[in-house]
Amino acid sequence: MSNVCVRGFSISLDGYAAGPRQSEEEPVGVGGRRLHRWIWETRTFRERFGMEGGSTGLDDAIMQRHFEGFGATIMGRNMFGPQRGPWEDESWRGWWGERPPWGYPVFVLTHHARPSLEMEGGTTFHFVTGGVDEALERARAAAGGKDVLVSGGAATIWQLLEARLIDELELAVVPILLGDGERLWEGLSPEAAASYRMDELRSSDAVTHVRMRRVAAE
Amino acid sequence: MSNVCVRGFSISLDGYAAGPRQSEEEPVGVGGRRLHRWIWETRTFRERFGMEGGSTGLDDAIMQRHFEGFGATIMGRNMFGPQRGPWEDESWRGWWGERPPWGYPVFVLTHHARPSLEMEGGTTFHFVTGGVDEALERARAAAGGKDVLVSGGAATIWQLLEARLIDELELAVVPILLGDGERLWEGLSPEAAASYRMDELRSSDAVTHVRMRRVAAE
Repeated sequence: MSNVCVRGFSISLDGYAAGPRQSEEEPVGVGGRRLHRWIWETRTFRERFGMEGGSTGLDDAIMQRHFEGFGATIMGRNMFGPQRGPWEDESWRGWWGERPPWGYPVFVLTHHARPSLEMEGGTTFHFVTGGVDEALERARAAAGGKDVLVSGGAATIWQLLEARLIDELELAVVPILLGDGERLWEGLSPEAAASYRMDELRSSDAVTHVRMRRVAAE
Repeated sequence: MSNVCVRGFSISLDGYAAGPRQSEEEPVGVGGRRLHRWIWETRTFRERFGMEGGSTGLDDAIMQRHFEGFGATIMGRNMFGPQRGPWEDESWRGWWGERPPWGYPVFVLTHHARPSLEMEGGTTFHFVTGGVDEALERARAAAGGKDVLVSGGAATIWQLLEARLIDELELAVVPILLGDGERLWEGLSPEAAASYRMDELRSSDAVTHVRMRRVAAE
């Protein structure tokens, strides 16, 4: 069966995956942009968005892993956009322009139904109102044997971790302190915590990459 | 003026510096022992306690830095012992035997006065009831121009961080999830968070060592 993976998900040293007060101007919340700076500096990411240059070391290798081997993605609604509550219209098409970087189906968790949105390059956004179980079931089916990527944000990853539905959790710990925002670990139970073991640990000059794997219950 | 430093202080990936329910049998709380395993495996630490062997790589270099250049230490009362409230008697002399590893004055923050405790090898425990300001003033005076080490635990470091009284914060991020215990970052304000910048980042196979320095207010 395909694995459910988090890859290169950025958190601050004090455990925040985004700053507070997300808006169209501040997609990662106030101060949160610094969490993603290492991503923008990798060659792999820059290529996906048509930019030249970029680094080719460890951080880039992690970004490659982020984009390879997956057939579907799950994300929370706040990762898709800054809107809250019912969709006022259907003009918002994500942060990523008309050609999002995935090239496969993306399942967006939301309480508010909306027709699927076909983008250029093979990405289609599907809006799932049945919770993580439905999203996971549809993502697995759509992935056609490939793995399922959980893109974020914090609340979505937390919910899947707590339910032990994530097989591999690969985090990028960015050595900054935010002091406010969206916490990844808020309310994670000791039982769920005990289900994950470190598998790989490496630091670049800028970021620590740590991979945890789910282990069988003891 | 001497610097106030934290050195090699261990926290879990989810931000805990100790597990819950500290007791004489579980000095680092339930599950917390795993936070200090890397320390026990270094040659420097083993030598201080008369044990042979131990690693000599990055983790050991960090432990050397923990013990060099300091003239006084501050610690919280829960780091000194598992008792709470007034001292029932004076039989508790710390976790470290009759020859604690410092060899200089140690200032223990407590609400309950107690006579100083002279140990072997130059360590004397002084019990400070006037809060962190008094502890810091006495530690600076006792250090005689050397730096002041803040040993822990989480509440003591948090309090000094929030007041911007720590110059260098060197953490050992241990890639385990605890899900419960004493949080280092609980309640750290965005203003205090913004006062610290990463200065050095390195990982061994077991632990990430990250050093933050206080920067001038912007």
